[in-house]
Amino acid sequence: MTPPRDGRPLRADALRNRAKVLEAAGAVFDARGTTASTEEVARAAGVGIGTVFRHFPTKEALLEAVYVARLRKLADEAEGLASADDPGEAFFAFFTRVVGHAATKNAFSAALMEAGVDVRESTAETGQGLKRALATLLTRAQESAAVRRDIGLPEVMTLLVGASQVAEHVGGDGGVRDRALAVVFDGLRAAPDR
Amino acid sequence: MTPPRDGRPLRADALRNRAKVLEAAGAVFDARGTTASTEEVARAAGVGIGTVFRHFPTKEALLEAVYVARLRKLADEAEGLASADDPGEAFFAFFTRVVGHAATKNAFSAALMEAGVDVRESTAETGQGLKRALATLLTRAQESAAVRRDIGLPEVMTLLVGASQVAEHVGGDGGVRDRALAVVFDGLRAAPDR
Repeated sequence: MTPPRDGRPLRADALRNRAKVLEAAGAVFDARGTTASTEEVARAAGVGIGTVFRHFPTKEALLEAVYVARLRKLADEAEGLASADDPGEAFFAFFTRVVGHAATKNAFSAALMEAGVDVRESTAETGQGLKRALATLLTRAQESAAVRRDIGLPEVMTLLVGASQVAEHVGGDGGVRDRALAVVFDGLRAAPDR
Repeated sequence: MTPPRDGRPLRADALRNRAKVLEAAGAVFDARGTTASTEEVARAAGVGIGTVFRHFPTKEALLEAVYVARLRKLADEAEGLASADDPGEAFFAFFTRVVGHAATKNAFSAALMEAGVDVRESTAETGQGLKRALATLLTRAQESAAVRRDIGLPEVMTLLVGASQVAEHVGGDGGVRDRALAVVFDGLRAAPDR
Protein backbone atom coordinates (compact mmCIF):
# COMPACT_ATOMS: atom_id res chain seq x y z
CA MET A 1 0.00 0.00 0.00
CA THR A 2 1.33 3.44 -0.89
CA PRO A 3 1.21 6.07 1.83
CA PRO A 4 -1.09 8.96 1.04
CA ARG A 5 0.52 12.32 0.60
CA ASP A 6 -1.73 15.37 0.44
CA GLY A 7 -4.57 13.00 -0.24
CA ARG A 8 -2.78 11.47 -3.21
CA PRO A 9 -0.92 8.17 -3.00
CA LEU A 10 2.75 8.31 -3.98
CA ARG A 11 3.27 6.75 -7.37
CA ALA A 12 5.74 3.91 -7.68
CA ASP A 13 8.45 6.11 -9.25
CA ALA A 14 7.97 8.73 -6.53
CA LEU A 15 8.43 6.02 -3.90
CA ARG A 16 11.56 4.81 -5.68
CA ASN A 17 12.90 8.37 -5.76
CA ARG A 18 12.19 8.81 -2.06
CA ALA A 19 14.06 5.61 -1.23
CA LYS A 20 16.94 6.66 -3.50
CA VAL A 21 17.22 10.03 -1.75
CA LEU A 22 17.08 8.39 1.70
CA GLU A 23 19.84 5.95 0.83
CA ALA A 24 22.03 8.63 -0.75
CA ALA A 25 21.44 10.89 2.26
CA GLY A 26 22.61 8.15 4.64
CA ALA A 27 25.79 7.62 2.62
CA VAL A 28 26.52 11.35 2.29
CA PHE A 29 25.91 12.10 6.01
CA ASP A 30 28.10 9.14 7.01
CA ALA A 31 30.93 10.15 4.72
CA ARG A 32 30.85 13.94 5.14
CA GLY A 33 29.07 14.44 8.45
CA THR A 34 25.58 15.66 9.21
CA THR A 35 26.52 19.17 8.08
CA ALA A 36 26.62 17.99 4.46
CA SER A 37 24.20 19.96 2.30
CA THR A 38 20.94 18.89 0.70
CA GLU A 39 22.55 19.72 -2.65
CA GLU A 40 25.22 17.09 -2.07
CA VAL A 41 22.52 14.57 -1.28
CA ALA A 42 20.65 15.40 -4.48
CA ARG A 43 23.86 15.02 -6.52
CA ALA A 44 24.67 11.68 -4.88
CA ALA A 45 21.12 10.44 -5.49
CA GLY A 46 21.23 11.58 -9.10
CA VAL A 47 18.04 13.61 -8.75
CA GLY A 48 17.26 17.32 -8.83
CA ILE A 49 17.18 19.35 -5.63
CA GLY A 50 13.45 19.84 -6.20
CA THR A 51 12.89 16.09 -5.87
CA VAL A 52 14.70 16.07 -2.53
CA PHE A 53 12.62 18.96 -1.20
CA ARG A 54 9.38 17.44 -2.47
CA HIS A 55 9.94 14.44 -0.18
CA PHE A 56 11.84 16.18 2.61
CA PRO A 57 10.92 19.86 2.94
CA THR A 58 13.89 20.61 5.23
CA LYS A 59 17.36 19.29 5.90
CA GLU A 60 16.14 18.32 9.39
CA ALA A 61 13.27 16.29 7.94
CA LEU A 62 15.83 14.43 5.82
CA LEU A 63 18.13 13.79 8.78
CA GLU A 64 15.24 12.58 10.88
CA ALA A 65 13.98 10.25 8.12
CA VAL A 66 17.43 8.63 7.75
CA TYR A 67 17.68 8.24 11.51
CA VAL A 68 14.24 6.68 11.89
CA ALA A 69 14.76 4.38 8.89
CA ARG A 70 17.98 3.05 10.41
CA LEU A 71 16.45 2.48 13.81
CA ARG A 72 13.60 0.61 12.13
CA LYS A 73 16.06 -1.53 10.18
CA LEU A 74 17.81 -2.37 13.45
CA ALA A 75 14.50 -3.31 15.07
CA ASP A 76 13.64 -5.51 12.07
CA GLU A 77 17.00 -7.25 12.37
CA ALA A 78 16.43 -7.85 16.07
CA GLU A 79 13.04 -9.38 15.37
CA GLY A 80 14.54 -11.56 12.67
CA LEU A 81 17.28 -12.74 15.04
CA ALA A 82 14.78 -13.51 17.79
CA SER A 83 13.90 -16.76 16.02
CA ALA A 84 17.45 -17.64 14.92
CA ASP A 85 18.71 -21.21 15.34
CA ASP A 86 21.65 -20.28 17.58
CA PRO A 87 20.34 -17.95 20.34
CA GLY A 88 23.84 -17.14 21.64
CA GLU A 89 25.15 -16.21 18.23
CA ALA A 90 22.01 -14.14 17.59
CA PHE A 91 22.42 -12.21 20.85
CA PHE A 92 26.07 -11.34 20.26
CA ALA A 93 25.46 -10.53 16.59
CA PHE A 94 22.80 -8.03 17.58
CA PHE A 95 24.96 -6.51 20.35
CA THR A 96 27.70 -5.97 17.75
CA ARG A 97 25.20 -4.42 15.31
CA VAL A 98 23.95 -1.92 17.89
CA VAL A 99 27.50 -0.92 18.79
CA GLY A 100 28.35 -0.51 15.10
CA HIS A 101 25.27 1.65 14.69
CA ALA A 102 26.20 3.84 17.68
CA ALA A 103 28.53 6.38 16.13
CA THR A 104 25.97 7.21 13.44
CA LYS A 105 23.13 7.27 15.92
CA ASN A 106 24.90 9.71 18.22
CA ALA A 107 25.94 12.01 15.38
CA PHE A 108 22.36 12.16 14.08
CA SER A 109 20.88 12.67 17.56
CA ALA A 110 23.29 15.53 18.22
CA ALA A 111 22.55 17.22 14.88
CA LEU A 112 18.80 16.87 15.33
CA MET A 113 18.93 18.06 18.93
CA GLU A 114 20.95 21.08 17.83
CA ALA A 115 18.30 21.83 15.19
CA GLY A 116 15.64 21.64 17.90
CA VAL A 117 14.05 18.47 16.51
CA ASP A 118 12.75 16.15 19.20
CA VAL A 119 13.01 12.62 17.79
CA ARG A 120 11.53 10.96 20.86
CA GLU A 121 8.06 10.93 19.39
CA SER A 122 9.03 9.60 15.97
CA THR A 123 11.25 6.90 17.48
CA ALA A 124 9.35 5.92 20.65
CA GLU A 125 7.52 3.00 19.07
CA THR A 126 10.56 1.65 17.25
CA GLY A 127 12.65 2.08 20.41
CA GLN A 128 10.16 0.05 22.43
CA GLY A 129 10.15 -2.64 19.76
CA LEU A 130 13.95 -2.74 19.89
CA LYS A 131 13.91 -3.16 23.65
CA ARG A 132 11.37 -5.98 23.49
CA ALA A 133 13.40 -7.75 20.80
CA LEU A 134 16.59 -7.38 22.86
CA ALA A 135 14.81 -8.85 25.90
CA THR A 136 13.78 -11.85 23.80
CA LEU A 137 17.31 -12.28 22.44
CA LEU A 138 18.74 -12.14 25.97
CA THR A 139 16.25 -14.61 27.45
CA ARG A 140 16.84 -17.11 24.65
CA ALA A 141 20.62 -16.76 24.95
CA GLN A 142 20.39 -17.31 28.70
CA GLU A 143 18.13 -20.32 28.31
CA SER A 144 20.65 -21.88 25.95
CA ALA A 145 23.45 -21.13 28.48
CA ALA A 146 25.25 -18.85 26.02
CA VAL A 147 24.90 -15.87 28.35
CA ARG A 148 25.20 -15.86 32.16
CA ARG A 149 21.90 -15.85 34.04
CA ASP A 150 22.73 -13.47 36.88
CA ILE A 151 22.12 -10.34 34.80
CA GLY A 152 19.03 -8.86 33.22
CA LEU A 153 18.01 -6.34 30.56
CA PRO A 154 19.16 -3.28 32.62
CA GLU A 155 22.71 -4.66 32.85
CA VAL A 156 22.79 -5.53 29.15
CA MET A 157 21.46 -2.08 28.20
CA THR A 158 24.11 -0.51 30.44
CA LEU A 159 26.87 -2.50 28.76
CA LEU A 160 25.43 -1.56 25.36
CA VAL A 161 25.50 2.14 26.22
CA GLY A 162 29.09 1.86 27.44
CA ALA A 163 30.22 -0.12 24.42
CA SER A 164 28.42 2.27 22.07
CA GLN A 165 30.06 5.32 23.57
CA VAL A 166 33.45 3.66 23.41
CA ALA A 167 32.82 2.82 19.77
CA GLU A 168 32.16 6.48 19.10
CA HIS A 169 35.21 7.74 21.00
CA VAL A 170 37.82 5.20 19.99
CA GLY A 171 36.56 5.79 16.47
CA GLY A 172 39.41 5.03 14.12
CA ASP A 173 41.13 2.12 15.82
CA GLY A 174 38.77 -0.76 15.13
CA GLY A 175 41.29 -3.29 16.48
CA VAL A 176 41.28 -1.81 19.97
CA ARG A 177 37.50 -1.47 19.90
CA ASP A 178 37.02 -5.08 18.79
CA ARG A 179 39.36 -6.46 21.45
CA ALA A 180 37.66 -4.36 24.15
CA LEU A 181 34.29 -5.66 22.95
CA ALA A 182 35.63 -9.23 23.04
CA VAL A 183 36.44 -8.71 26.74
CA VAL A 184 32.83 -7.64 27.40
CA PHE A 185 31.51 -10.62 25.43
CA ASP A 186 33.67 -13.05 27.39
CA GLY A 187 32.31 -11.45 30.55
CA LEU A 188 28.75 -11.93 29.33
CA ARG A 189 29.50 -15.59 28.63
CA ALA A 190 31.33 -16.18 31.90
CA ALA A 191 29.65 -18.25 34.57
CA PRO A 192 29.79 -16.12 37.72
CA ASP A 193 31.98 -17.41 40.59
CA ARG A 194 29.11 -17.11 43.07
CA MET B 1 59.42 31.36 65.87
CA THR B 2 57.61 34.27 64.29
CA PRO B 3 56.27 33.33 60.86
CA PRO B 4 56.98 35.83 58.10
CA ARG B 5 53.98 38.14 57.67
CA ASP B 6 54.57 39.12 54.11
CA GLY B 7 56.90 36.27 53.34
CA ARG B 8 55.91 34.42 50.22
CA PRO B 9 55.82 30.87 51.61
CA LEU B 10 52.43 30.07 53.14
CA ARG B 11 52.42 29.83 56.91
CA ALA B 12 51.20 26.63 58.49
CA ASP B 13 47.78 28.04 59.37
CA ALA B 14 47.37 29.45 55.87
CA LEU B 15 48.21 26.03 54.43
CA ARG B 16 45.66 24.44 56.75
CA ASN B 17 43.04 26.99 55.65
CA ARG B 18 43.79 26.31 52.01
CA ALA B 19 43.38 22.56 52.56
CA LYS B 20 40.17 23.15 54.52
CA VAL B 21 38.73 25.27 51.68
CA LEU B 22 39.75 22.67 49.07
CA GLU B 23 38.11 19.85 50.99
CA ALA B 24 34.93 21.83 51.64
CA ALA B 25 34.81 22.86 47.97
CA GLY B 26 34.99 19.23 46.89
CA ALA B 27 32.15 18.27 49.22
CA VAL B 28 29.99 21.26 48.19
CA PHE B 29 30.53 20.75 44.43
CA ASP B 30 29.77 17.03 44.78
CA ALA B 31 26.59 17.63 46.75
CA ARG B 32 25.22 20.70 44.95
CA GLY B 33 26.91 20.58 41.57
CA THR B 34 29.68 22.70 40.12
CA THR B 35 27.35 25.71 39.98
CA ALA B 36 27.45 26.02 43.79
CA SER B 37 28.76 29.43 44.86
CA THR B 38 32.04 30.39 46.49
CA GLU B 39 30.00 31.70 49.43
CA GLU B 40 28.61 28.20 50.06
CA VAL B 41 32.15 26.84 50.03
CA ALA B 42 33.30 29.46 52.55
CA ARG B 43 30.36 28.63 54.84
CA ALA B 44 31.03 24.90 54.61
CA ALA B 45 34.73 25.45 55.33
CA GLY B 46 33.92 27.71 58.29
CA VAL B 47 36.07 30.54 56.93
CA GLY B 48 35.33 34.00 55.61
CA ILE B 49 34.84 34.59 51.89
CA GLY B 50 38.05 36.66 51.95
CA THR B 51 40.04 33.58 52.95
CA VAL B 52 38.63 31.64 50.00
CA PHE B 53 39.51 34.40 47.54
CA ARG B 54 42.98 34.84 48.99
CA HIS B 55 43.79 31.25 48.01
CA PHE B 56 41.56 30.96 44.94
CA PRO B 57 41.00 34.30 43.20
CA THR B 58 38.16 32.92 41.04
CA LYS B 59 35.55 30.20 41.18
CA GLU B 60 37.30 28.57 38.21
CA ALA B 61 40.62 28.52 40.08
CA LEU B 62 38.85 26.73 42.93
CA LEU B 63 37.21 24.18 40.60
CA GLU B 64 40.51 23.52 38.87
CA ALA B 65 42.34 23.09 42.17
CA VAL B 66 39.80 20.51 43.40
CA TYR B 67 40.01 18.68 40.08
CA VAL B 68 43.81 18.57 40.03
CA ALA B 69 43.99 17.53 43.70
CA ARG B 70 41.68 14.60 43.05
CA LEU B 71 43.58 13.46 39.99
CA ARG B 72 46.80 13.62 42.01
CA LYS B 73 45.24 11.58 44.80
CA LEU B 74 44.21 8.98 42.23
CA ALA B 75 47.74 8.89 40.83
CA ASP B 76 49.16 8.49 44.35
CA GLU B 77 46.79 5.58 44.98
CA ALA B 78 47.85 3.94 41.73
CA GLU B 79 51.50 4.24 42.68
CA GLY B 80 50.75 2.80 46.10
CA LEU B 81 48.90 -0.14 44.55
CA ALA B 82 51.71 -0.82 42.09
CA SER B 83 53.65 -2.56 44.86
CA ALA B 84 50.66 -4.31 46.48
CA ASP B 85 50.95 -7.96 47.48
CA ASP B 86 48.07 -9.14 45.28
CA PRO B 87 48.56 -7.68 41.78
CA GLY B 88 45.14 -8.84 40.54
CA GLU B 89 43.31 -7.32 43.48
CA ALA B 90 45.32 -4.12 43.05
CA PHE B 91 44.44 -3.84 39.36
CA PHE B 92 40.70 -4.33 39.89
CA ALA B 93 40.65 -2.06 42.93
CA PHE B 94 42.19 0.73 40.89
CA PHE B 95 39.83 0.15 37.94
CA THR B 96 36.91 0.48 40.37
CA ARG B 97 38.39 3.65 41.87
CA VAL B 98 38.76 5.31 38.46
CA VAL B 99 35.17 4.43 37.55
CA GLY B 100 33.95 5.78 40.89
CA HIS B 101 35.88 8.97 40.21
CA ALA B 102 34.41 9.34 36.72
CA ALA B 103 31.15 11.15 37.39
CA THR B 104 32.95 13.87 39.36
CA LYS B 105 35.73 14.11 36.83
CA ASN B 106 33.33 14.61 33.94
CA ALA B 107 31.25 17.19 35.81
CA PHE B 108 34.38 19.19 36.65
CA SER B 109 35.80 18.91 33.13
CA ALA B 110 32.52 20.12 31.66
CA ALA B 111 32.26 23.08 34.05
CA LEU B 112 35.88 24.10 33.44
CA MET B 113 35.56 23.72 29.68
CA GLU B 114 32.44 25.87 29.75
CA ALA B 115 34.35 28.52 31.71
CA GLY B 116 37.07 28.39 29.05
CA VAL B 117 39.67 26.87 31.39
CA ASP B 118 42.01 24.42 29.66
CA VAL B 119 43.04 21.90 32.30
CA ARG B 120 45.31 19.93 29.96
CA GLU B 121 48.39 21.82 31.06
CA SER B 122 47.73 21.58 34.79
CA THR B 123 46.87 17.89 34.57
CA ALA B 124 49.25 16.65 31.85
CA GLU B 125 51.96 15.49 34.24
CA THR B 126 49.56 13.83 36.67
CA GLY B 127 47.74 12.22 33.75
CA GLN B 128 50.98 10.74 32.44
CA GLY B 129 51.81 9.45 35.91
CA LEU B 130 48.40 7.82 36.11
CA LYS B 131 48.89 6.12 32.76
CA ARG B 132 52.31 4.80 33.75
CA ALA B 133 50.93 3.49 37.05
CA LEU B 134 48.03 1.80 35.26
CA ALA B 135 50.48 0.14 32.85
CA THR B 136 52.45 -1.22 35.81
CA LEU B 137 49.26 -2.47 37.51
CA LEU B 138 48.18 -4.20 34.29
CA THR B 139 51.55 -5.85 33.64
CA ARG B 140 51.77 -7.17 37.19
CA ALA B 141 48.19 -8.47 37.07
CA GLN B 142 48.91 -10.22 33.77
CA GLU B 143 52.15 -11.73 35.05
CA SER B 144 50.25 -13.18 38.02
CA ALA B 145 47.60 -14.57 35.61
CA ALA B 146 44.86 -12.45 37.21
CA VAL B 147 44.19 -10.65 33.93
CA ARG B 148 44.22 -12.14 30.42
CA ARG B 149 47.37 -11.52 28.41
CA ASP B 150 45.90 -10.88 24.97
CA ILE B 151 45.07 -7.23 25.72
CA GLY B 152 47.19 -4.18 26.42
CA LEU B 153 46.91 -0.68 27.85
CA PRO B 154 44.82 0.70 24.94
CA GLU B 155 42.13 -1.96 25.47
CA VAL B 156 42.11 -1.37 29.24
CA MET B 157 41.89 2.40 28.74
CA THR B 158 39.02 1.87 26.31
CA LEU B 159 37.14 -0.29 28.81
CA LEU B 160 37.83 2.32 31.51
CA VAL B 161 36.37 5.09 29.36
CA GLY B 162 33.28 3.01 28.63
CA ALA B 163 32.80 1.97 32.24
CA SER B 164 33.32 5.55 33.41
CA GLN B 165 30.72 6.91 31.03
CA VAL B 166 28.29 4.23 32.05
CA ALA B 167 28.91 5.10 35.70
CA GLU B 168 28.01 8.70 34.93
CA HIS B 169 24.87 7.86 32.94
CA VAL B 170 23.40 5.05 35.03
CA GLY B 171 24.05 7.34 37.98
CA GLY B 172 21.55 6.44 40.65
CA ASP B 173 21.26 2.69 40.27
CA GLY B 174 24.51 1.43 41.79
CA GLY B 175 23.30 -2.18 41.64
CA VAL B 176 23.01 -2.20 37.85
CA ARG B 177 26.34 -0.40 37.51
CA ASP B 178 28.10 -2.85 39.81
CA ARG B 179 26.71 -5.90 38.02
CA ALA B 180 27.65 -4.45 34.62
CA LEU B 181 31.16 -3.77 35.94
CA ALA B 182 31.34 -7.35 37.26
CA VAL B 183 30.69 -8.57 33.71
CA VAL B 184 33.61 -6.49 32.42
CA PHE B 185 35.84 -7.75 35.24
CA ASP B 186 34.99 -11.38 34.47
CA GLY B 187 35.83 -10.64 30.85
CA LEU B 188 39.20 -9.20 31.88
CA ARG B 189 39.91 -12.32 33.93
CA ALA B 190 38.71 -14.73 31.24
CA ALA B 191 41.28 -16.78 29.40
CA PRO B 192 40.53 -16.21 25.72
CA ASP B 193 39.28 -19.20 23.70
CA ARG B 194 41.99 -18.72 21.13
